[in-house]
Amino acid sequence: MRYAIIGTGALGGYYGARLQRSGADVHFLLNSDFDRVKTHGLVVESIYGDFTLPTMSAYRDASEMPPCDAVVICLKTTQNHLLPQLLPPLAADAAILTLQNGLNEEPAIATLLAERLGKPVGNAVRVAGGTAHICSNKIGPGHIRHSDYGRINLAAHVPEGAAREIPDWLRAIASDFEAAGIETSLSENLLDVRWHKLVWNIPFNGLSVIIDAKTDAMMGNEHTRSLLEQLMQEVVAGAAAYDVEIARDFVQLMLDSTAVMTPYLTSMKLDFDNRRPLEVESIYGNPIRAAQARGVAMPKTEALYQQLCFLNERNLIEG
Amino acid sequence: MRYAIIGTGALGGYYGARLQRSGADVHFLLNSDFDRVKTHGLVVESIYGDFTLPTMSAYRDASEMPPCDAVVICLKTTQNHLLPQLLPPLAADAAILTLQNGLNEEPAIATLLAERLGKPVGNAVRVAGGTAHICSNKIGPGHIRHSDYGRINLAAHVPEGAAREIPDWLRAIASDFEAAGIETSLSENLLDVRWHKLVWNIPFNGLSVIIDAKTDAMMGNEHTRSLLEQLMQEVVAGAAAYDVEIARDFVQLMLDSTAVMTPYLTSMKLDFDNRRPLEVESIYGNPIRAAQARGVAMPKTEALYQQLCFLNERNLIEG
Repeated sequence: MRYAIIGTGALGGYYGARLQRSGADVHFLLNSDFDRVKTHGLVVESIYGDFTLPTMSAYRDASEMPPCDAVVICLKTTQNHLLPQLLPPLAADAAILTLQNGLNEEPAIATLLAERLGKPVGNAVRVAGGTAHICSNKIGPGHIRHSDYGRINLAAHVPEGAAREIPDWLRAIASDFEAAGIETSLSENLLDVRWHKLVWNIPFNGLSVIIDAKTDAMMGNEHTRSLLEQLMQEVVAGAAAYDVEIARDFVQLMLDSTAVMTPYLTSMKLDFDNRRPLEVESIYGNPIRAAQARGVAMPKTEALYQQLCFLNERNLIEG
Repeated sequence: MRYAIIGTGALGGYYGARLQRSGADVHFLLNSDFDRVKTHGLVVESIYGDFTLPTMSAYRDASEMPPCDAVVICLKTTQNHLLPQLLPPLAADAAILTLQNGLNEEPAIATLLAERLGKPVGNAVRVAGGTAHICSNKIGPGHIRHSDYGRINLAAHVPEGAAREIPDWLRAIASDFEAAGIETSLSENLLDVRWHKLVWNIPFNGLSVIIDAKTDAMMGNEHTRSLLEQLMQEVVAGAAAYDVEIARDFVQLMLDSTAVMTPYLTSMKLDFDNRRPLEVESIYGNPIRAAQARGVAMPKTEALYQQLCFLNERNLIEG
């Protein structure tokens, strides 16, 4: 299968490089790192062994990329306004997989694809979402450091949002990922996958920005620890409104495993410190509105969202 | 009447100086500014006219102060653990008036007084609370700048927390305040006075610390403006649990008047920037627990409280 990687950063660079190394035909869209990668290739430091891709099919213009079987979106969701320009040239018959954060970015991608391709929005439009459980950072141009984990949970998007069987095209992608050494699980229910990831992302990402703290400091104070747990409970309530059951054990596991983690700067805090736009809508706004649409309030999550919107706007103006 | 001012800062210095200037016998307890005031007196810059008290009865040890008719507590509530040492020498037959921020500091003061004086906690123990609507800062040792407003709302504390008639001893205090040029109003219901003040204090004080912003920035962003208004609505709900009705017009007035205010650093933000302890319990913890005791949740207020506890602790450790 031929793959397009849209956004060759910490996530796209790592997974794309693994795919290419395992023999897949991978085409990478880059922006600022294009020149560096063209001359020096892509360097991956990984806990599973360092390697370099000396040559790669790199592009800085999506319209020059060849038709692909699967397009993997690894941009930040704050760049999704670019997708109408980026996707159509590639996606004539491609499956789209978004490995982005947050909730409910897939419907817009499916609608976009259907409109541009003249298809009805339905199961014929192949869109899937995945959550990447990975610690990976871009530490320099064309230079990625993968420091822990790496598992991906995949599920297909269905227009009505309900569970469905796992389609063959998604199984094929998962198979390629597994062959590339990427632990991959398949689920029938994308909302289940997404809401489970939010149990960690909603409390830790936002609070780390607002109070300027790493995971250990947040967990080490009784007040913020209570807040984190209460935020998780709001996510559990939001998920339940979509028939996604999040077990009490899962919440406890998120707390316990974070408490013993090496002190960690969340990805949103890294974005903030580097004056990049924060993914406030995909991680906060979309879940809050989805829960609200089913009559479930997430008041503490919303307080974080409102604070983050302020901080994000000021951060970008000052930057 | 003879007055003791416990805490001669922006509040106690200003009101105490006005009382003395109008002829009252006022005794001031000071700490760090004692030497300066002993030699240079107390300087008050005020929008109503600057003046100096060249001599004043200043003390740094409460046990040396004479018995007084009224003791006015102007410390930050974070220092109320000192009251058991400060009050008894003064308060044999005195009325106690606390002009401190927040909610429900009066019951502990009344209990303390009753215990130390061997009286039952009842109306015989004369305790009142007041809210000071004033912009006043201490800008140097023995140097106060009063930049706006100055009104005080007074009401007597009653053990059961219900409204009662205004006692004569409180009318006498109010009369002295008025004679000193301090606009003073009397209420039968201390909870009414306290909850109304919280409508402004809860949203603006905490948020200004958490997102490092003045009033204009908080009001100028649609997200934080919504948050401020929602926090006010939580205060309205908490007040209603104590039969305190806060009119919709009052909430709107707080928002509208703040929107046109000269950009203002809240007193909690000033405390934070100067690494002084924040009044998180009196302004947040006490109202949240009071509402909770009547089955009313204040979730966004609680989120602020939890964040403030973290920030306050870190701020004091780093200081």
